[in-house]
Amino acid sequence: MATAGKVIKCKAAVAWEPNKPLVIEEIEVDPPQANEVRIKIVATGVCHSDLYQLFENMHKDGFPTVLGHEAAGIVESVGPGVTEFQPGDKVIPLFLAQCEQCRFCKSPKTNQCERAWDNNRSGAMAPLESRFTCKGKKIQQFVGTSTFSEYTVVNQMAVAKIDPASPLDKVFLLGCGICTGYGAAVNTAKVEPGSTCAVFGLGAVGLAAVMGCSAAGAKRIIAVDINPEKFEKAKVFGATDCVNPKDHDKPISKVLAEMTNGGVDFSLECVGNVEVMRSALESCVEGWGVSVIVGWTDLHDFAARPVQLIAGRTWKGSFFGGFKGKVGVPGMVKAYMDKKVKLDEFITHEMTLDQINDAIELMKTGKCIRTILRVSQ
Amino acid sequence: MATAGKVIKCKAAVAWEPNKPLVIEEIEVDPPQANEVRIKIVATGVCHSDLYQLFENMHKDGFPTVLGHEAAGIVESVGPGVTEFQPGDKVIPLFLAQCEQCRFCKSPKTNQCERAWDNNRSGAMAPLESRFTCKGKKIQQFVGTSTFSEYTVVNQMAVAKIDPASPLDKVFLLGCGICTGYGAAVNTAKVEPGSTCAVFGLGAVGLAAVMGCSAAGAKRIIAVDINPEKFEKAKVFGATDCVNPKDHDKPISKVLAEMTNGGVDFSLECVGNVEVMRSALESCVEGWGVSVIVGWTDLHDFAARPVQLIAGRTWKGSFFGGFKGKVGVPGMVKAYMDKKVKLDEFITHEMTLDQINDAIELMKTGKCIRTILRVSQ
Repeated sequence: MATAGKVIKCKAAVAWEPNKPLVIEEIEVDPPQANEVRIKIVATGVCHSDLYQLFENMHKDGFPTVLGHEAAGIVESVGPGVTEFQPGDKVIPLFLAQCEQCRFCKSPKTNQCERAWDNNRSGAMAPLESRFTCKGKKIQQFVGTSTFSEYTVVNQMAVAKIDPASPLDKVFLLGCGICTGYGAAVNTAKVEPGSTCAVFGLGAVGLAAVMGCSAAGAKRIIAVDINPEKFEKAKVFGATDCVNPKDHDKPISKVLAEMTNGGVDFSLECVGNVEVMRSALESCVEGWGVSVIVGWTDLHDFAARPVQLIAGRTWKGSFFGGFKGKVGVPGMVKAYMDKKVKLDEFITHEMTLDQINDAIELMKTGKCIRTILRVSQ
Repeated sequence: MATAGKVIKCKAAVAWEPNKPLVIEEIEVDPPQANEVRIKIVATGVCHSDLYQLFENMHKDGFPTVLGHEAAGIVESVGPGVTEFQPGDKVIPLFLAQCEQCRFCKSPKTNQCERAWDNNRSGAMAPLESRFTCKGKKIQQFVGTSTFSEYTVVNQMAVAKIDPASPLDKVFLLGCGICTGYGAAVNTAKVEPGSTCAVFGLGAVGLAAVMGCSAAGAKRIIAVDINPEKFEKAKVFGATDCVNPKDHDKPISKVLAEMTNGGVDFSLECVGNVEVMRSALESCVEGWGVSVIVGWTDLHDFAARPVQLIAGRTWKGSFFGGFKGKVGVPGMVKAYMDKKVKLDEFITHEMTLDQINDAIELMKTGKCIRTILRVSQ
């Protein structure tokens, strides 16, 4: 490649400060260092976690940055010591790395990784620096990925190689939201055949959770959202019932208890709201109900009465759907290629990187499921 | 039996109102009705849940009542339809009944029972009435048992028949605290061989949890209490380390994380304090840590940050240690007879029913592990 070993000047959407529109800038992307991979991003999505960083968390320390972590691309060049990847490989960057050597990576119980890019999950690529510069300033890499850029550099621990035949403008969705929701049902909740499930929040993550419940053989899947426009899509992914809490005077947990003889077997919170987390737990049947927190927020405590757990419910959380990325993401790509997992149906809008602020606005107002941003040809 | 079919006049400790000493009264105990068993109580313990009802919950609706739910006795007579029990059988009353017919009883996942004495777990024997009268007033039966009485009447769903050779003045402990703590480790947390555990609170329940962790093969068991006088006993039951949070400037979760390379595999909260519940969760290692709420309180919410679960921890609760009483309690009696479970070591004081207020005072001030109250000969 003519660009290998050289700084690449390219376009990226820079978040200079919290709560402000992103700015399309020309940035410099350094060559990959040892164990790093430079990737040409072909397609990226906007995910709630990007918005969370920009509008909710707003830690000044995290800026300026290039957001974006749900993407697919092609390896442009690799740094010293990289043998797993070659230029031209189709890849998906992983915001949750997998070193394959630590006690977490070696355990089948978790997809956490001790050597991942940042144990606090709030900063730059590991080691704690970035390969981005703009106007002479270092620009941080968000969750070790930063896919709102034509090129990015990622540690090889945080890259999954995928089927060369896979369409990047579809499978980019497996970089975050779809794996997160689907895996939360299949890997974390371990939804059982014949069970009754409730999914709270019908964005891409929630719809993927519905799809996961369906794939796991749930008999009844109750989709819950305060926006009834989401219900039609939920049925496409396997929802059997749709409930709008605003249509009822009583708490949603009571509504679901009445519909299901005491509560659901599994509930998945896909909103990132601590009150909804509580409702999701309380909607589970006592004895064995399992509730999984999938939506991300960390600004407030979640809470419930002790009796909710003492009566036999279990409260879990899911991060990237429990998938170990290097294995799980190619597996989900294969499932898509084998038509066992839907992806096309999540994409409601198509834009280019230049239009990223419009895509963010669509997301904030709940008017899209997922927008594909075409980044490079 | 000369008393069968007749009202029995006997001694009981009546709680006339919340937050007042119990009063030893003569009460009338009706004969057992259909599916009921009248039991002569031989030995009973005072448990935190009795104190909770008396001093913390204090719902006026729950009074007057006879407290007590951790006991052993002998069947005096049985009502119509009872075939499982005969006069003379040694039994342990169950505050958590087991009808053996409902969906919960038929599931191996839970020890809850749909037909148990009271779905709200706050009142009298099922059906919602009592066989006790005192001075012309109906006296409620606490959690369907009421063992601070020479005689009580319990639904046959809520009675476990035990080995006729077992010493009632020891195995009465299996009516609540010891099964609760031991089972929380073995049945609910499912402590694994070679694992690291932390037990918060070293009353009888906590010590039994330590014993459960040890029986399950834990390699390291860290006993945590703000009363260092409990530590010696904790070691008797298998604790390998003892930590007093007051000896440290940093949060106990940080202390344990440093002792254990990131946190324990299993933690058990045996206090009934929502702040301790939070500490116990936060003391678990991310990825796979399991924290179990064992201590009973329902006056406040427990809470934590979502990331605690999203990072891979699981929060559970345990009620009566997950034991289905009719099977589990006789099993634990056998384990004691086979010297696989310790009981004698929990008993630090011995009194008669007349001294119950002294026994309560000992419990409140943490000066005992368990006091045996000898009720009848």
